[in-house]
Amino acid sequence: MKIEVSQAELLHALQQTARAVPPSSPLPILAGMVLRIHREGITLLAGSSPMVIRTDIRIPMPGLPRETEDNGLVVPARTFADIVRKLPPGPVELEQTDRSMLCIRAGSGLFRLCGTDGEEYPAAPEIGRPTLQLRLPNTVLKSMIRQVAFAVSASETRPILTGVWCRSDGEQLKLVATDSVRFASTTSRIEQPSDTPPFEAIVPGRCMAELAKMLQDDQGETRIDADEALIRFHTADMTLSCSLLHGAYPPIDRLVPARPNCELKVDTEKLLQAIERVTLLSGEGCVVFLHTVSAESAALVGQAAEVGDVREEVPIETVAGEGVAISFNGKYMTDILRAIAGGTLMLRFYDKLGPIAAEPEPAAGSSSLYLLTPIRTSR
Amino acid sequence: MKIEVSQAELLHALQQTARAVPPSSPLPILAGMVLRIHREGITLLAGSSPMVIRTDIRIPMPGLPRETEDNGLVVPARTFADIVRKLPPGPVELEQTDRSMLCIRAGSGLFRLCGTDGEEYPAAPEIGRPTLQLRLPNTVLKSMIRQVAFAVSASETRPILTGVWCRSDGEQLKLVATDSVRFASTTSRIEQPSDTPPFEAIVPGRCMAELAKMLQDDQGETRIDADEALIRFHTADMTLSCSLLHGAYPPIDRLVPARPNCELKVDTEKLLQAIERVTLLSGEGCVVFLHTVSAESAALVGQAAEVGDVREEVPIETVAGEGVAISFNGKYMTDILRAIAGGTLMLRFYDKLGPIAAEPEPAAGSSSLYLLTPIRTSR
Repeated sequence: MKIEVSQAELLHALQQTARAVPPSSPLPILAGMVLRIHREGITLLAGSSPMVIRTDIRIPMPGLPRETEDNGLVVPARTFADIVRKLPPGPVELEQTDRSMLCIRAGSGLFRLCGTDGEEYPAAPEIGRPTLQLRLPNTVLKSMIRQVAFAVSASETRPILTGVWCRSDGEQLKLVATDSVRFASTTSRIEQPSDTPPFEAIVPGRCMAELAKMLQDDQGETRIDADEALIRFHTADMTLSCSLLHGAYPPIDRLVPARPNCELKVDTEKLLQAIERVTLLSGEGCVVFLHTVSAESAALVGQAAEVGDVREEVPIETVAGEGVAISFNGKYMTDILRAIAGGTLMLRFYDKLGPIAAEPEPAAGSSSLYLLTPIRTSR
Repeated sequence: MKIEVSQAELLHALQQTARAVPPSSPLPILAGMVLRIHREGITLLAGSSPMVIRTDIRIPMPGLPRETEDNGLVVPARTFADIVRKLPPGPVELEQTDRSMLCIRAGSGLFRLCGTDGEEYPAAPEIGRPTLQLRLPNTVLKSMIRQVAFAVSASETRPILTGVWCRSDGEQLKLVATDSVRFASTTSRIEQPSDTPPFEAIVPGRCMAELAKMLQDDQGETRIDADEALIRFHTADMTLSCSLLHGAYPPIDRLVPARPNCELKVDTEKLLQAIERVTLLSGEGCVVFLHTVSAESAALVGQAAEVGDVREEVPIETVAGEGVAISFNGKYMTDILRAIAGGTLMLRFYDKLGPIAAEPEPAAGSSSLYLLTPIRTSR
């Protein structure tokens, strides 16, 4: 089977699919990628649970067999991508000569890559009767993921916290992530047919982060379907399938006390830059101390034993309630402020045991909330 | 002592000086950098043998002491650079408040950085009676270093081969580097006063590579002076001092046999791209097999056990002598072709025991020669 494809298109598809190739795996075949050449063009497929990515390059080839009639060929993913990256721009001819060889012709070069029968590659999980079907603009989905995915837990101690909790009632989509010290949530209005069923699932954070990187086509939309075990994200030329996490997600309804003691309105970018500088001298624990100086200004203080200390001031736009004096992890706050990405921000402080809440100005149809547990210090 | 400097200028000087800070050192003080604030401005100094870098920011401060009257302050180099990188553009005030504290003020921030007395920093070696004084345009020096420095030995087995051998007769400057498998040399005409004495020295390759990176000012020139132990490169605002290597450099006069068996003229860029692709499938030894196919074309072949193989053709512009069939390390040849950087190239092949010679077309007043020991294979 032989097909001609442009180098740029093939490289893009290869790079997208390779995101599902695990960096290391006990199963050597998972360092490979399945290539199928068929009547509708080229299909690339990589990964196994929790993440499988399938990419299609549509080139009508009426003479070739249907996709289902051939297992395809597993080729080493990294070598294949390295070769295509180095090929000159222009047409590339791919030919599967038998069950174990892929020929790549471009310019004056001929590469022959050893492969194995696609039958040996772990089968991608099939979705059952879908309980959810949503359509979202890529820009909305990408932005929502970027706003929360950083806050998932990096530790496997509570596997459920490595996931992003997603809930849709057909009118709104809510994404939540927390590692139990910080919490991020974002909600967007979504326009779906009125019979869209409600849905709740916990999607591994790593899959969500890869999905956000893959959503480069800002014009397009993503179709989401899911059953009890699996969620799939379809764009025009790619499908990312992802096994869901199972377990009880911690309750998120009563995280914020009723009334704040203090409320500050600040410029997000100014606060971010000041905290980034203060964390340079805030020691290993990254402890940043914030206190109101006047109605117009708050001070941020950091101290690193034997290295030095730092004091920054940021202007306050409005203040309500008492003043505040509180310490927090500067690195965690930086992550939150980067996710908020500009505009103005409401910081709310509660009594001693309460969290710090950060809430950006709501945009059209969407709102976000971030919480950070303060650090108790002797100060 | 207090001085005001622009953030951009301070950052540039810090980044240049930090090149001499060793990545790790048994002497903790070498993670620091000496800062001196004095009548002529700011001096930054870092490193110890073999490489010391001194950078000056000239700001006339008539009220301050002379540079020699104060030891300055050793501050943690990396933290200092990180802080200045994060400061807003605009003026930065540096104040040395006592023998152990540097205050940095910018915008609404105040950093206090702990330091130690500059007296404790290893003294930079002083040059004796110089045997060499040369002036070279930065572009010439940078280009010459880039053409040979990659070929120094990475192994300390023969320390002398980790250096670049430099020779000047007052009319020409020649730089040579070899790790005994590959050899690179370049010669440039230099216009110096007629009484310039001849000179020969072996400069550590790492210092030469850092120097090439620092020569960003294409308009300027570098003044070189040296004695038996030390060479110094001075630009408008920076001095790099470097301890010389001592020992007998291998003889380089009779490396090339008298007459080649075969001579091919090829386009450097086309050959480079073809070899880069072939090395993707040339196995762990990176063995590339080259053979002439016709008077117009040569083939390059690579083979990686259990992964695949590759064949590329490159056009030949002219050919002289017999055909050729020879194997070499593709990675090493790639380094050579990258150093040559374009144009056309003469490849010469000798008998079985001889090297492969690569010679780019000589440019105005300069010429280069590269040699590579072939790999003996059963082919």
